[in-house]
Amino acid sequence: MERIKPHTLSGFMELLPPRQALMERILETVRRVYALYGFTPLDTPLLEASDVLLAKGGGETEKQIYRFQKGDTDLALRFDLTVPLAKYVALHYADLTFPFRRYQIGKVYRGERAQRGRFREFYQADIDVIGDGELDIMNEAEIPSVIYRLFTELGLSKFVIRVNNRKLLTGFYELLGLGDRAGDIMRTVDKLEKIGPEKVRTILVDDLSIAPADAEKILAFMSVKGSNAQVLTALEAYRGQNETFDKGLEELGTVAGLLAAFGVPESHFALDLTIARGLDYYTGTVYETFLTDHPEVGSVCSGGRYDDLAGYYTDRKLPGVGISIGLTRLFFILDDVGLLSGDAPTAPADVLILPMTDDPAPAVAFSTLLRAGGVRAQLYGEKRKFKAKMTYANRLGVPFVAILGEDEIAAGEVSIKDMATGEQKRLPLGEAAGLLSAVLSGRGSVAPVKE
Amino acid sequence: MERIKPHTLSGFMELLPPRQALMERILETVRRVYALYGFTPLDTPLLEASDVLLAKGGGETEKQIYRFQKGDTDLALRFDLTVPLAKYVALHYADLTFPFRRYQIGKVYRGERAQRGRFREFYQADIDVIGDGELDIMNEAEIPSVIYRLFTELGLSKFVIRVNNRKLLTGFYELLGLGDRAGDIMRTVDKLEKIGPEKVRTILVDDLSIAPADAEKILAFMSVKGSNAQVLTALEAYRGQNETFDKGLEELGTVAGLLAAFGVPESHFALDLTIARGLDYYTGTVYETFLTDHPEVGSVCSGGRYDDLAGYYTDRKLPGVGISIGLTRLFFILDDVGLLSGDAPTAPADVLILPMTDDPAPAVAFSTLLRAGGVRAQLYGEKRKFKAKMTYANRLGVPFVAILGEDEIAAGEVSIKDMATGEQKRLPLGEAAGLLSAVLSGRGSVAPVKE
Repeated sequence: MERIKPHTLSGFMELLPPRQALMERILETVRRVYALYGFTPLDTPLLEASDVLLAKGGGETEKQIYRFQKGDTDLALRFDLTVPLAKYVALHYADLTFPFRRYQIGKVYRGERAQRGRFREFYQADIDVIGDGELDIMNEAEIPSVIYRLFTELGLSKFVIRVNNRKLLTGFYELLGLGDRAGDIMRTVDKLEKIGPEKVRTILVDDLSIAPADAEKILAFMSVKGSNAQVLTALEAYRGQNETFDKGLEELGTVAGLLAAFGVPESHFALDLTIARGLDYYTGTVYETFLTDHPEVGSVCSGGRYDDLAGYYTDRKLPGVGISIGLTRLFFILDDVGLLSGDAPTAPADVLILPMTDDPAPAVAFSTLLRAGGVRAQLYGEKRKFKAKMTYANRLGVPFVAILGEDEIAAGEVSIKDMATGEQKRLPLGEAAGLLSAVLSGRGSVAPVKE
Repeated sequence: MERIKPHTLSGFMELLPPRQALMERILETVRRVYALYGFTPLDTPLLEASDVLLAKGGGETEKQIYRFQKGDTDLALRFDLTVPLAKYVALHYADLTFPFRRYQIGKVYRGERAQRGRFREFYQADIDVIGDGELDIMNEAEIPSVIYRLFTELGLSKFVIRVNNRKLLTGFYELLGLGDRAGDIMRTVDKLEKIGPEKVRTILVDDLSIAPADAEKILAFMSVKGSNAQVLTALEAYRGQNETFDKGLEELGTVAGLLAAFGVPESHFALDLTIARGLDYYTGTVYETFLTDHPEVGSVCSGGRYDDLAGYYTDRKLPGVGISIGLTRLFFILDDVGLLSGDAPTAPADVLILPMTDDPAPAVAFSTLLRAGGVRAQLYGEKRKFKAKMTYANRLGVPFVAILGEDEIAAGEVSIKDMATGEQKRLPLGEAAGLLSAVLSGRGSVAPVKE
């Protein structure tokens, strides 16, 4: 037979079983936490008609898209989960109940230049709350709580959710008389952390022709730091000059004011006036999330409030708020910086059962007993020497091995070996099953990340 | 803004939230049951290089494939999960432990002619056990147990797993001296149920030029029916004439003999000599699964033993056994015949919390308390009249509503309304949270299917 060399496309993540087991645990945690907040799961096609997917048009995204013809149809692979959500809500509007809260976890595709840590196929894990015409600020206040709970359950503690409000920024630039330049200025200010205030000042003055005094005011505004209370107090100095600014300040105050009730400690939350999010469509609260010890990787969970989800499909005003996590990239980063837990079990089974007699029926029956009690049991059916069987158990990393030899079977018993301690004991079958079930459920679930 | 009419491609399933919630429950059940049997989760790219994906080449599949160029790369969307598994095992051979047991649930793509109940994008849910050079028959005996447990946990009881062995068939045709015609004959016999024995006889004799006496022997063999014991006894009559047949009979006996130990009742298992599975690569036990009351939909879970998983990538002999479920089609069928449960909860939350005061903080704090106890809680933040809020609760189908008005807040209490009974009572916050957590976990999980 002619042989083809097997390979996986560059930029496509494909994990070995232990790593995949950790990724699954992350996916499970995301699903569970999103569901706790009353988001309903959604699943949309990975392929859409190109005119639908590119309705918003243009930009970098269009160049990266996987687009092709099949018969008469012009198709494309989705490049995010937001456009499919907009399509879904516009298409099924009459059948949905608003506010409509959905989560979606799925792969998206971007034909980016392949480089380390960049993926062409990657998971996004999004939540959005969509209102019909209007949407209360409380939904914006709730988002940090979802992020906090999710990251905490993943096993992370060193992270901070940075929050700002676009109305505040827009209003501030308006009160400086720079409202029409706000976009350019925000893109420059966005580089503050990377290039420092001196270089930002130079760009503002030289490239954007902002008056030096205004550049000074912008840098002063951006340098407001401190506790939530301190930042809010400092912002009071600007109140009363611009309606949009005042609205933004009020919203930011509401979001910060509800933090405690939402169970988010101030240690994990920071009002940060430099956060702008590049995208034009954010209109209220915006969020970025940083790993404290790894600021170089940038935000790992971002989003914000927008006023018009689906303007290119419908004339209904559908405001919303949402966040997105690039799970494949997050997984890559966590692995790269050594934060994936070595303690989280990654074995495919809790118990490996070794039949030691010609008739495997007693071992099979024990597997059925264990599985009935919810224990993940694997039968090792291959005719090998005992040592080879134990080597297999070690390679899988199963916590327990169950041995059914002639003696055990004659006595209605099974020998259970604890692979961590090496301890082995013989027990009646039912007792062994009960014990394993209790021990394993008692271990609870171990977070996939360990700092 | 120019508007694009939103639409979803024909042949691509996109569900409304209540149906999606049931689909998620099915996916969860599949993951849980597959994991119980010691299969490790796997995830591979949806896009592969076309030369890799089409290494096996030819056939109907190639015409249906979604294949395109991106830059210099010839890509294709996977059309099943078996070829990616073969690639994975060949590529990562050195890093895997054999027998390698994996499950994979993912979407696959086939550009079939669009028609009712046929999907171009659909989920497959596969398990496979791959041996390195050899693989014990016990793995073949275990498969019906996985199918039985999975279908039972989904809520189905009226199904039967039909099992045969390809060695038995091959050996039988060899002993008739028709070994070189076995493929054509099997494809004809496969139509027995659909067209009846008379027409099969006609095709065998007229089209395939089988001697009438041999056609008679084939039909007699295929008509062997009854309990497992009866079928095995009838097959004994053919023993000793062909080595392959005898091996197949022995394997079939082993598989049937371990059923009880594997917890599969005979009522849900039938030896059926007419089952052949079209694909050439099956070499041992083969499986099909039928819904007893809906034989017209055909097999909903099929597979078998094969000797050569990845011959087009590697010269290593990698025998295996596996099954595949077309979950999207199964979901469509269950919905179509009215078997999706109306009892399974599909609301996005267990409790909808209604803040009735200007300051939502007490209601927010209650949501945090509930979520800490694992209760799926949703805050309703919109400023609406009470009646509109209750309408929203009814439309979502939440089982409980929690009301926090001034009186409740002053007393440190909350009013809980049971939406099924209409009963409402006021309780201290902690007591209410404990009660809701207990009641909701006590309800356990309801199967997605109800017969």
